[in-house]
Amino acid sequence: MDKNILGTQIVTQIGIIVNDIEKVSQSYADFFGIEKPEWFWTDTVDVAQTEFNGESSIARSKLAFIDGGQLQIELIEPDHNPSTWREFLDEKGEGVHHIAFGIKGMKEKIELLNRNKMPLIQKGEYTGGRYAYMDSFDELKVLIELLENDN
Amino acid sequence: MDKNILGTQIVTQIGIIVNDIEKVSQSYADFFGIEKPEWFWTDTVDVAQTEFNGESSIARSKLAFIDGGQLQIELIEPDHNPSTWREFLDEKGEGVHHIAFGIKGMKEKIELLNRNKMPLIQKGEYTGGRYAYMDSFDELKVLIELLENDN
Repeated sequence: MDKNILGTQIVTQIGIIVNDIEKVSQSYADFFGIEKPEWFWTDTVDVAQTEFNGESSIARSKLAFIDGGQLQIELIEPDHNPSTWREFLDEKGEGVHHIAFGIKGMKEKIELLNRNKMPLIQKGEYTGGRYAYMDSFDELKVLIELLENDN
Repeated sequence: MDKNILGTQIVTQIGIIVNDIEKVSQSYADFFGIEKPEWFWTDTVDVAQTEFNGESSIARSKLAFIDGGQLQIELIEPDHNPSTWREFLDEKGEGVHHIAFGIKGMKEKIELLNRNKMPLIQKGEYTGGRYAYMDSFDELKVLIELLENDN
């Protein structure tokens, strides 16, 4: 494997796949004694340009974010269209899907990871940035998400 | 559920169960461009006072820690004796086992979580502190570990 692939080792997010984001958001809110976070839909494919396994996908998820200190806890409730979120839920059930890192230079990082046997699974755009899920499971025993924010 | 159960929402650790700690440690070291962390065995039961599902267990794990910013990435390779680590590996395979929080007042926190349907799974001692794994999966979709350090 190439060395220092991301240029960072700071975990910025842990992503958890759930069946019922309303219920789990409320549980976290109670658990931490905070207000229940509002969930929202990821963008539609025309905006998100979602690609899963190399093909365009109309898949969306409901997302909610909870402050976990340095890192966010991201809750993800997938719809039924093809995505890494739906695949994970169908195959493994609810649970931790990924850890995320903030990076710069998305295209180059994806190529570097591809070359190091951690292939791209899914990518897309969001307001102010873009993401990519890479299949690092064999090496790191968890998927990683790259997050690149423009600012 | 009672509110603000832990008194903190800072995730201090993410624990990942692995089959081969040597191999996965090396992968993380390469991935981050750091030295491979040394793994070590958890203490024997006479020191660790390990209890799993309410019974004393001689189970041990190899542990290795990697700096992930504010939080540690903990790699755990369980032995074959009864533990939450071994149970997870046998039932779910490799992957994220828990997120951890630093707390004060272990006994009271365990009782509070027990009352809130997040029962104790396993507990034990380590040099300078103690831990408890609580079954928060139904509520939070991940197990939590309580860590209490004396200093």
